[in-house]
Amino acid sequence: MTIDQKLNVVPFISVDHMMKLVLKVGIDTFLIELAATIEEDFRRWPAFDKTPRVASHSHEGVIELMPTSDGTLYGFKYVNGHPKNTRQGRQTVTAFGVLSDVGNGYPMLLSEMTILTALRTAATSAVAAKFLARSGSRTMAIIGNGAQSEFQARAFKALLGTDKLRLFDIDPSATRKCARNLEGLGFTIVECGSVEEAVEGADIVTTVTADKQYATILSDNHVGPGVHINAVGGDCPGKTELSKDILLRSDIFVEYPPQTRIEGEIQQLPSDHAVTEVWQVITGEAVGRRNDGQITLFDSVGFAIEDFSALRYVRAKIAELNMFEELDLLADPDDPRDLYGMLLRCEKKLSAV
Amino acid sequence: MTIDQKLNVVPFISVDHMMKLVLKVGIDTFLIELAATIEEDFRRWPAFDKTPRVASHSHEGVIELMPTSDGTLYGFKYVNGHPKNTRQGRQTVTAFGVLSDVGNGYPMLLSEMTILTALRTAATSAVAAKFLARSGSRTMAIIGNGAQSEFQARAFKALLGTDKLRLFDIDPSATRKCARNLEGLGFTIVECGSVEEAVEGADIVTTVTADKQYATILSDNHVGPGVHINAVGGDCPGKTELSKDILLRSDIFVEYPPQTRIEGEIQQLPSDHAVTEVWQVITGEAVGRRNDGQITLFDSVGFAIEDFSALRYVRAKIAELNMFEELDLLADPDDPRDLYGMLLRCEKKLSAV
Repeated sequence: MTIDQKLNVVPFISVDHMMKLVLKVGIDTFLIELAATIEEDFRRWPAFDKTPRVASHSHEGVIELMPTSDGTLYGFKYVNGHPKNTRQGRQTVTAFGVLSDVGNGYPMLLSEMTILTALRTAATSAVAAKFLARSGSRTMAIIGNGAQSEFQARAFKALLGTDKLRLFDIDPSATRKCARNLEGLGFTIVECGSVEEAVEGADIVTTVTADKQYATILSDNHVGPGVHINAVGGDCPGKTELSKDILLRSDIFVEYPPQTRIEGEIQQLPSDHAVTEVWQVITGEAVGRRNDGQITLFDSVGFAIEDFSALRYVRAKIAELNMFEELDLLADPDDPRDLYGMLLRCEKKLSAV
Repeated sequence: MTIDQKLNVVPFISVDHMMKLVLKVGIDTFLIELAATIEEDFRRWPAFDKTPRVASHSHEGVIELMPTSDGTLYGFKYVNGHPKNTRQGRQTVTAFGVLSDVGNGYPMLLSEMTILTALRTAATSAVAAKFLARSGSRTMAIIGNGAQSEFQARAFKALLGTDKLRLFDIDPSATRKCARNLEGLGFTIVECGSVEEAVEGADIVTTVTADKQYATILSDNHVGPGVHINAVGGDCPGKTELSKDILLRSDIFVEYPPQTRIEGEIQQLPSDHAVTEVWQVITGEAVGRRNDGQITLFDSVGFAIEDFSALRYVRAKIAELNMFEELDLLADPDDPRDLYGMLLRCEKKLSAV
């Protein structure tokens, strides 16, 4: 069975399948190849249809649809954000996505994206840091040691060689979990008791906390010259991690300004505060880091094109490895104009049994 | 296994499952119950988040996302429209949808919606006609005898008792197929050679053609006094079925004006031409038919709330009948903060095999 054989079938990647795929490819290789796909799509950023995500807000959280298209492929992700979910043993964020053929509108892939989003978020952070952090950055502080922390650590090590970690979380058991999960991979890990301790000597500071309203995880005095800040946790209206003073001292890089101004750290700044789009740094149209004293800040909120890249990469990978399930998602009547006749034939078949 | 048992599982309705569900319930009962659910949701129209669909247009067609929420449930449909698809044996329109819990953002249902959309479109037409057509309307002309035609016929018979059909299609084999598919159900069917012949004595005229650009399927002289026109086929920019003169003689009823003005027959009229929202006729806030000579026109394009109703109905029905598949779509780590640990445990399990 090759991947394009049956018209009614959409290749499907369950959570279990995604884990097996990632492990089969290898986490490092997966992150490196995924990062390369993201970088490739960032390089052709103007080719994409871009729109801020379509959000449905409620008191408890948000459900979002994130569509984009490059004219050949169309992708969208469904993702929720519900900070109180963990109290019921549910994930704060779950996601799935679909990649489709623009030419005929048929879905070509339905995939879980909870795990895939964790990987693409980390890969995107690492791509941005590759272009923005000082070269030779080997030490990273990770503030917030929850579900995204290990993925960040692995992506930065795989792409930048960042092998010294300084971990901090207000919950020491989260730090413990993160350190334990990263054992045996060649990291030097220091579990820290405070943000101050964690940022000591860090070339890169990653903030990736959750469940906070306008929190100041990182204060101005925590950030020395030359640091690259990878701000991942502040990603919706009312949720930020950095003090405004840091933003004013930093050169700020973003994915898609219309979305970041609403959701990112820069929601704290006037709407005309200068920011640079990361894709322009990658293509060379804009300058990234100018000197070793400059503070660079990637104000990451996650954009649809990154999910598109992730779906595109997964689709290519499962075709290559022939690893997918088949989902009977599309009606395929013998005669496209005879959808009703499909029902009649099904009825006949059932009554014949 | 009850429907809410496992956190990682999303109940899934494949095409095959949907056919079995519809046949198990019975097509008439399904249409009647679905219509009741749609009517129920039209009665509480102001309670919904409404937005025109999010469309991604290309030369070949369109891919759309149609989200809505009533504050408790969230639903969206993915649907494509690619008129040339039939040449490759593909459906012009395929669709699937998701219903979610607003409280935690978790999907509660993933369902095929190609068949379900055909049913909900027909049910919506019948609901509108129930409030707009002359009482005692028994004869319906169906212009366009493709994939939607039999569903229209069955919904109108089930809800309004419309049992005399006059069929016309520019392709006589389509008319033949439609008539044959509807045999033995108590219809009196006349296969007609022209639109003129089809509309003769019809109380209701349903236009449901496809693949036409600004076509005039129905001319002004085809429409006598008192007729209810159920215009289903004109449903995207540049695609209309009725002559402008008919529109000017009719009282026009629509689903959601901001969407219909772009996609419906009324794209031919100035943007301030008076239209009435169908939900207001149903609640009694607006007048529908005033007299037996009036021409009423339901300019139907399909709106997200109808898909929401369909998903809501299907979810209730499969829970009642315990008829669904289980899709491993959501990551469910033992500890919600330990997504990465899930990967590690999967690795251990695999290496132990």
